Amino acid sequence: MSKDQKSDRFKKGWAKLQEVHGQVGQDVLDELAETAPALSEFIIEYPYGDIYSRPGLDVRSRQIATISALTAMGNAHKELTVHIQAGLNVGLTKEEIIEIIMQMSVYAGFPAAMNGIEAAKEAFEKFEAKAT
Amino acid sequence: MSKDQKSDRFKKGWAKLQEVHGQVGQDVLDELAETAPALSEFIIEYPYGDIYSRPGLDVRSRQIATISALTAMGNAHKELTVHIQAGLNVGLTKEEIIEIIMQMSVYAGFPAAMNGIEAAKEAFEKFEAKAT
Amino acid sequence: MSKDQKSDRFKKGWAKLQEVHGQVGQDVLDELAETAPALSEFIIEYPYGDIYSRPGLDVRSRQIATISALTAMGNAHKELTVHIQAGLNVGLTKEEIIEIIMQMSVYAGFPAAMNGIEAAKEAFEKFEAKAT
Amino acid sequence: MSKDQKSDRFKKGWAKLQEVHGQVGQDVLDELAETAPALSEFIIEYPYGDIYSRPGLDVRSRQIATISALTAMGNAHKELTVHIQAGLNVGLTKEEIIEIIMQMSVYAGFPAAMNGIEAAKEAFEKFEAKAT
Amino acid sequence: MSKDQKSDRFKKGWAKLQEVHGQVGQDVLDELAETAPALSEFIIEYPYGDIYSRPGLDVRSRQIATISALTAMGNAHKELTVHIQAGLNVGLTKEEIIEIIMQMSVYAGFPAAMNGIEAAKEAFEKFEAKAT
Amino acid sequence: MSKDQKSDRFKKGWAKLQEVHGQVGQDVLDELAETAPALSEFIIEYPYGDIYSRPGLDVRSRQIATISALTAMGNAHKELTVHIQAGLNVGLTKEEIIEIIMQMSVYAGFPAAMNGIEAAKEAFEKFEAKAT
Repeated sequence: MSKDQKSDRFKKGWAKLQEVHGQVGQDVLDELAETAPALSEFIIEYPYGDIYSRPGLDVRSRQIATISALTAMGNAHKELTVHIQAGLNVGLTKEEIIEIIMQMSVYAGFPAAMNGIEAAKEAFEKFEAKAT
Repeated sequence: MSKDQKSDRFKKGWAKLQEVHGQVGQDVLDELAETAPALSEFIIEYPYGDIYSRPGLDVRSRQIATISALTAMGNAHKELTVHIQAGLNVGLTKEEIIEIIMQMSVYAGFPAAMNGIEAAKEAFEKFEAKAT
Repeated sequence: MSKDQKSDRFKKGWAKLQEVHGQVGQDVLDELAETAPALSEFIIEYPYGDIYSRPGLDVRSRQIATISALTAMGNAHKELTVHIQAGLNVGLTKEEIIEIIMQMSVYAGFPAAMNGIEAAKEAFEKFEAKAT
Repeated sequence: MSKDQKSDRFKKGWAKLQEVHGQVGQDVLDELAETAPALSEFIIEYPYGDIYSRPGLDVRSRQIATISALTAMGNAHKELTVHIQAGLNVGLTKEEIIEIIMQMSVYAGFPAAMNGIEAAKEAFEKFEAKAT
Repeated sequence: MSKDQKSDRFKKGWAKLQEVHGQVGQDVLDELAETAPALSEFIIEYPYGDIYSRPGLDVRSRQIATISALTAMGNAHKELTVHIQAGLNVGLTKEEIIEIIMQMSVYAGFPAAMNGIEAAKEAFEKFEAKAT
Repeated sequence: MSKDQKSDRFKKGWAKLQEVHGQVGQDVLDELAETAPALSEFIIEYPYGDIYSRPGLDVRSRQIATISALTAMGNAHKELTVHIQAGLNVGLTKEEIIEIIMQMSVYAGFPAAMNGIEAAKEAFEKFEAKAT
């Protein structure tokens, strides 16, 4: 099925995914779709079409929430790296991202924060490699 | 030792704790101090004196980070309730807090988000009871 | 908006929710909807409309997966109790449910399994109270 | 001590391990035994000799429970990969395994489900490499 | 089956359970046995018969390990309370237990440590109530 | 700012870090400081200056607590490896460390314990490489 025939939720989600993640998000979902195409579609529809598209919270605040949660949970290094790049995309500064991650030492312990910083380092390098 | 004789970090942390939490934070630490007075002091000094007092991230963003992390981790209902009240203190609206918690369904699952909403309900009621 | 005007996903999800949980599920969502009506709708649409309604896995197997995951994560006692009742609804026996929870001692430790058994005890009592 | 001199629990566990995991399970335990031989024996005796050998739940249902719990916890990528291969061994189809993992997006969030799919991809490839 | 007919592992585990927990442990297992008698036996056999009975680590060190792990994981308040009482039984002082729990603020965050202190307060009161 | 101009907490923490971790700890913090210099300083000041320097618990017991917690949480493989080396530094034997990690199978499940053993294997090799 081509993208033109998809539901409105899918189209709205796809546009939001592009806004937040650019090409990086598309690459992650393309890889996922090889094994689980339905999950790839659900990610466009629910997180991006339903949640991130809601008007009640600005996109910058949404990325703060996601970066802090993924740092605290510590179970998804790759997704955290992708969302730190998204944070830079939507206007968070590197300094703000470091502050968010350091704050997680308070709520999830220092090892979680240290791993978050490692993800930030990787994400900053990938973001700059794209920009040049 | 009276508060006047405490370190600068303690004094800075105490002021920040008042700004973020008001009387609620003091009550939590007073209860903690009965069993673990040193931990009560460390909480004033490190999270509030060192972390929340840093200039690189505004207090509203810091509360977004904390509410999302505690919702996602799901291991500290009471602290989450206290931090949602703090979110209201520093200017987050109820609608924004609900959005932050709903977004956690994406990263930590629906049960974590549902429990976060329960904490929000309690926190909103406590906040309003104080205001009247 | 009345249920008649809802999307097909919502209607499909609502029917699946009734099949899996009966009145218990409706009560949980009604309570949630007081504070977060949008989350209540999303739960009908995504978990029940999109996921549980998929043909690739039978409803009994889906409840095994949910009971084991919630026992292992240990962060959602109430939801676990609700899903154990749903397990009985869709044909799991008490003995099978106890086996699933005991098996979690292997993957998540004995305390998680012990708490799961406590949830099972509560769920069995609620299920029998309804049946009489 | 040779296997002949082992306890009945060990012998029963060893047979169950072979049934569920084949050579893959033996390789994992052999590697573990280099550093912690007692833990390697305990794994044969308790999870396989005591738990998986119990009659109250069929082996297919047991693998559903384990795959969902390990996906949801997200702390043991290698063990998850091993248990997905075991799922194929005992008769789960690839499609069913993908459904189980996708369902975990509901209970543990999308990043946990995405990492589960990555483990499934690896496991499917290993399973097919053995089969040829 | 009377205790006399049980396996050596069971008898060894039962004796170790008495040494570590006294009557408190027996009460916990009696309650568990109402719903899941097999799990109750497995707890005597594996954690106490196999693990705690091993000679390579003294009982005081074992309780330090358990108290710190349960505080850090934060998913089993009741079991933590039971193991803090056991810590007092085997010779840890209240001050040492408070230190162990405070140290978890570093590895699992301050909310986990605060909840651990709450468990310690409850455990200290129960321990003293028994002693008088 | 040179180390001479740092606070007493920093100096005390630095000395404790050397005692517990030797060069390994310094390397970890130097790498962290490239991206997050403030977090690197906070780690010296709070965990080492404030917590590990407290007199109420001996350094050997503190390492037992940390190794067990990091094994149980399972979210910080590198830090666990570093703390197992520290355990050897402060006098824990390899056998004791294996016992601590095996005991975590009871509280956090076998996969967490298996991953802990893998970390121990790495740590033992690094410790011996330094010693020669």
